[in-house]
Amino acid sequence: MTSTSALPALDPAQIKPMADAIRALAMDAVETAKSGHPGMPMGMADAAAVLWSRHVTFDPANPSWPDRDRFVLSAGHGSMLVYALLHLIGVKGVTMDQIRNFRQLGSNTPGHPEYGHTPGVETTTGPLGQGISTAVGMALAERMLNARYGDELVDHYTWVIASDGDLQEGISQEAIALAGHWKLNRLIVLWDDNSISIDGATDLSDTTDHGARFESAGWRVMRVDGHDAAAIDKALTKARASDRPVMIACRTVIGKGAPTKAGTAGSHGSPLGADEIEGARKALDWPHGPFEIPQSVYDSWAGVAKRGAAARAAWAARHQASNRRADFDAQLSGETPRAALDALNDHIRAVLADKPALATRAASGKAIEAFWDKIPGLAGGSADLTGSVNTLVKGMAPLSADNYAGQYIHYGVREHGMAAAMNGMTLHGGVRPYAGTFLVFSDYCRPAVRLSALMNQPVIYVFTHDSIGLGEDGPTHQPVEHLSALRAIPNLVVLRPADAVEAAEAWAVALTRTDGPTALILSRQKTPHLRTDDGAANLSARGAYVLREADGPAQVTLVGTGTETALAVEAQGLLKARGVHARVVSAPSLETFLSQDAGYRDSVVDPTLPVVAVEAGLRWGWDALVGRDGGFVGMTGFGASAPAEALFDHFAITAEAVANEAAKRA
Amino acid sequence: MTSTSALPALDPAQIKPMADAIRALAMDAVETAKSGHPGMPMGMADAAAVLWSRHVTFDPANPSWPDRDRFVLSAGHGSMLVYALLHLIGVKGVTMDQIRNFRQLGSNTPGHPEYGHTPGVETTTGPLGQGISTAVGMALAERMLNARYGDELVDHYTWVIASDGDLQEGISQEAIALAGHWKLNRLIVLWDDNSISIDGATDLSDTTDHGARFESAGWRVMRVDGHDAAAIDKALTKARASDRPVMIACRTVIGKGAPTKAGTAGSHGSPLGADEIEGARKALDWPHGPFEIPQSVYDSWAGVAKRGAAARAAWAARHQASNRRADFDAQLSGETPRAALDALNDHIRAVLADKPALATRAASGKAIEAFWDKIPGLAGGSADLTGSVNTLVKGMAPLSADNYAGQYIHYGVREHGMAAAMNGMTLHGGVRPYAGTFLVFSDYCRPAVRLSALMNQPVIYVFTHDSIGLGEDGPTHQPVEHLSALRAIPNLVVLRPADAVEAAEAWAVALTRTDGPTALILSRQKTPHLRTDDGAANLSARGAYVLREADGPAQVTLVGTGTETALAVEAQGLLKARGVHARVVSAPSLETFLSQDAGYRDSVVDPTLPVVAVEAGLRWGWDALVGRDGGFVGMTGFGASAPAEALFDHFAITAEAVANEAAKRA
Repeated sequence: MTSTSALPALDPAQIKPMADAIRALAMDAVETAKSGHPGMPMGMADAAAVLWSRHVTFDPANPSWPDRDRFVLSAGHGSMLVYALLHLIGVKGVTMDQIRNFRQLGSNTPGHPEYGHTPGVETTTGPLGQGISTAVGMALAERMLNARYGDELVDHYTWVIASDGDLQEGISQEAIALAGHWKLNRLIVLWDDNSISIDGATDLSDTTDHGARFESAGWRVMRVDGHDAAAIDKALTKARASDRPVMIACRTVIGKGAPTKAGTAGSHGSPLGADEIEGARKALDWPHGPFEIPQSVYDSWAGVAKRGAAARAAWAARHQASNRRADFDAQLSGETPRAALDALNDHIRAVLADKPALATRAASGKAIEAFWDKIPGLAGGSADLTGSVNTLVKGMAPLSADNYAGQYIHYGVREHGMAAAMNGMTLHGGVRPYAGTFLVFSDYCRPAVRLSALMNQPVIYVFTHDSIGLGEDGPTHQPVEHLSALRAIPNLVVLRPADAVEAAEAWAVALTRTDGPTALILSRQKTPHLRTDDGAANLSARGAYVLREADGPAQVTLVGTGTETALAVEAQGLLKARGVHARVVSAPSLETFLSQDAGYRDSVVDPTLPVVAVEAGLRWGWDALVGRDGGFVGMTGFGASAPAEALFDHFAITAEAVANEAAKRA
Repeated sequence: MTSTSALPALDPAQIKPMADAIRALAMDAVETAKSGHPGMPMGMADAAAVLWSRHVTFDPANPSWPDRDRFVLSAGHGSMLVYALLHLIGVKGVTMDQIRNFRQLGSNTPGHPEYGHTPGVETTTGPLGQGISTAVGMALAERMLNARYGDELVDHYTWVIASDGDLQEGISQEAIALAGHWKLNRLIVLWDDNSISIDGATDLSDTTDHGARFESAGWRVMRVDGHDAAAIDKALTKARASDRPVMIACRTVIGKGAPTKAGTAGSHGSPLGADEIEGARKALDWPHGPFEIPQSVYDSWAGVAKRGAAARAAWAARHQASNRRADFDAQLSGETPRAALDALNDHIRAVLADKPALATRAASGKAIEAFWDKIPGLAGGSADLTGSVNTLVKGMAPLSADNYAGQYIHYGVREHGMAAAMNGMTLHGGVRPYAGTFLVFSDYCRPAVRLSALMNQPVIYVFTHDSIGLGEDGPTHQPVEHLSALRAIPNLVVLRPADAVEAAEAWAVALTRTDGPTALILSRQKTPHLRTDDGAANLSARGAYVLREADGPAQVTLVGTGTETALAVEAQGLLKARGVHARVVSAPSLETFLSQDAGYRDSVVDPTLPVVAVEAGLRWGWDALVGRDGGFVGMTGFGASAPAEALFDHFAITAEAVANEAAKRA
């Protein structure tokens, strides 16, 4: 329960050396690394000093305490700003040695802030627009948890420093529209309004009135001189009491302090050089050597730790006394409750008994139905395709500014903002998000999907309408290269289930994953029930398994994924009639299977036999399994607009084609 | 030279049946196809009827006449709107039979409008936000050509119908910011403001004041009742005289005419059903059968053709009389002038003589220098990384609202808007765009790159900083999966040159391509000169070639791309010292090489020998060349922040590693 009342009056004379310490460290670290971005930290040093010394609630001794304020440097290239801050306020591990090793192999001060590398870095930034959009997810998570646990346990701010580039990226519009719509009044963005980007003055490419733009999205907007500590302090104090998200445009001089490069693109992205740094030291009246911070400055910064420790202690006492403690801790743990996984397993057994023929998107919807109410913090959603992607089940309430307890999020047609917001939710903790769109639109959110993977975040992507099987909407909506392109992202598990059992198993894989995102790839069209086992083990978890043994000594292996697995099964029958014995392998996760040990791989796909795979996508990547001489039945280019059955015939993705490719090789 | 003065007074009684014809065709076609989106065409029928009958200058007998107005249905799901319009105004080929065959295989009326399939369809739409953003490129191209050829030859409007979804997508912000900045006053957007999207009311996810948002980007905004023909006509007339781009918010009822589904999401994306259609026919007082249009309605629509034919004839006379005619025709042909290709060839010979060691981004910059002033209509640019991606050469003037004759475009940090605008420029014709960003940010513009490929547009993407070789910026900026993901896009040629000669050859491939986009993948870091031939042939054009023959009977083939080709050459030497004869193949375009005939492929990469490839990216896709048992030296996951040399050692992408993999197999 943050409060501004305890703050003593601001003393600009105390703030200046605190800010200059950030400037000096940024200059020195970039100079030593011979690369980096000094301009942004130097320009925003005053605002950052006021913000952190008087407004951010953060305990450097406990940088992951749940009710801390979150701080996101969306302008990730200015990473020295956050490293300097974390060092000055005394976060353990962010030592002067690490600052000296800025941008070197193995340091915890990489070129851009990376989640998991540096205590106190809340999210990975650098790709512009991601930070501000991720912060929206964090701020939403805060309100969602607040709705459940009250101010007593959850009551904090999300602070963002954003650059011109962040605001130029389209994703920022998706994010600010959502934040405004949700009235996320605990989200406060400081825009480093310095009128300079890499190419030069921002007016080379931008004349947008960003203040008016944020206002049009329902934000409160203030404008301050970003070097006037008192004005910044006043604006931040006001912002904390807002009933809407707040954007504070801080008019700054990039590289402030640098005698000739300040205010120019020359200070943006490269070392200032020895002469310029010497001049800056004089201009700032900072008579200290490189990487030298006087004790008096550390003493001034010590106030943050003091404030933070007190806030944390007060929170810990409330937490200790709370009768919601166990629930809260369990929800924050990020683990999927046993009850949810049990319910999903019961569901799998029921499906094995019922043998339904369903579109896998529908099967996915049924799986969600089985577990959704057993995961507190579950947040479903879709980019305005709810009915098509089967992400909403009966009983879920829509989340809104009037009901943060809602479990279902209507993101609008904003795939990129949706994915980034989900990253923010899992980074914040306590919220378990999944959301859906068509597979072809995974391209729209790819930069945020990549960050889920890079940050090891267990975000769940539901991508439906996964092939020409979607039919009439045509090539703009028919993914052909997307499976391959997603499988190429490291640490993303891609699952394309063949039937309702595999769809439920895919959900079990996704829900038990803790170290990275999962993409569920689902069909629009119906597919038959295929599984004949007892459901004792999750066969999808290792990526591929023998679905139908050959009826005699196997001569060829047929591998299918998703809805085309049924074609492989059908081809097995056709081949049998032609005297060829084929084994059928279902491969819901190709890249997972390829990463299994050789023993398992060879037990499923015999390396001495020819292999034919069938998937209504491109071959790209499949040679790793089928080999250069293997067969592949799939697409070779873009699709077309027609009913699905006509398309499968037209593109010759049929059981006949699979059988022919196999017979050629057997 | 369009003018509104000749227009007779609007007769609402004449407009109504013209609009109802659109409604009827949309209902009937969707019903017959059993899929599609009737709501949007029915809601915007009135606005579209006024727009086309009185404002769009278009000659159905000459649908690709250069000075026609461009019309973009950004809300591509409402494709029946554009097919109905094209049919009613008499575009050859858009017959009633085609309308009856809506969404069927081989028809020219696919589910979403597709460029090249239907005369009069100016761009492929459906993925939301693309249409409006592509239109910005068209409108800019119009002004660029106008700057060169004057009103006499180039003077037309770009009209857009956009939906809520278009405006929710982030790319729309990038596009409207650019259009406002460039003061594209010939761009007029009609927003179908119907408050309904797929999930239901738009206020489930959006409370943005879109009018204020467009105004903040420098647009003029008007608001009208989208069913009031006179009000629409007045707004359009006013819009045509604006000094800024115009957005007209048309308040409409989705599915207008449908008795129970109008105004609801129920009319959005599925057939209305027989009863509802019967009710609509009554409500609209449209007593005609399915696909039946009375002659009187065709007669009303005939005015468009009359106006268009007259405008075209007047233009043809001016064109005939113009002393700029030959230049204009040559520029519009889209062919790269011989002089430019000759200059590039001279440059290649000079590079072969000079043998420079350059970063391939720098080599690319030198290549541009050689030809840029010999291509009228060339439009360079970058997403705010001009100095880093080497896309600007001395002598180019920046394009701005004050100088549409500029050859260089500062797009700001807007990769997606940039790519879509380039699509618009090539679709418009007369402009030859290329633009650059870092390879990792190809993810930000992927949906538009896909459309370049799907529409066969010769857009040139310059993607630099192509691996861990970019060094300290770290994994957020280091592409590892991007080469594979781009190679997976059908009809995109991906070229990663190894030295300055290949960089120039890559430009020659890009400039001579007419049926699809090219991506040039370039390094930040220096790479040695490798080529020893005489430059008589473009060796890069077939994707791969023998760079260094083995010094004895070859035992293994080493394949390299980009900066790692030098490692393959070095490995050849190491292997020789170990008594192993290796051939070195340079493969600037892997997927191009894989598509060559087997004879050529086998002559370069002997299928009987083991293969080891080296590329500082993932293996995904490479098995197609090296085989399951082949060697690959590259990345297996994300990169790290450190100087480049340290990273190549850390990730063991070295000549030693290549030699070891080869020796194991030779």
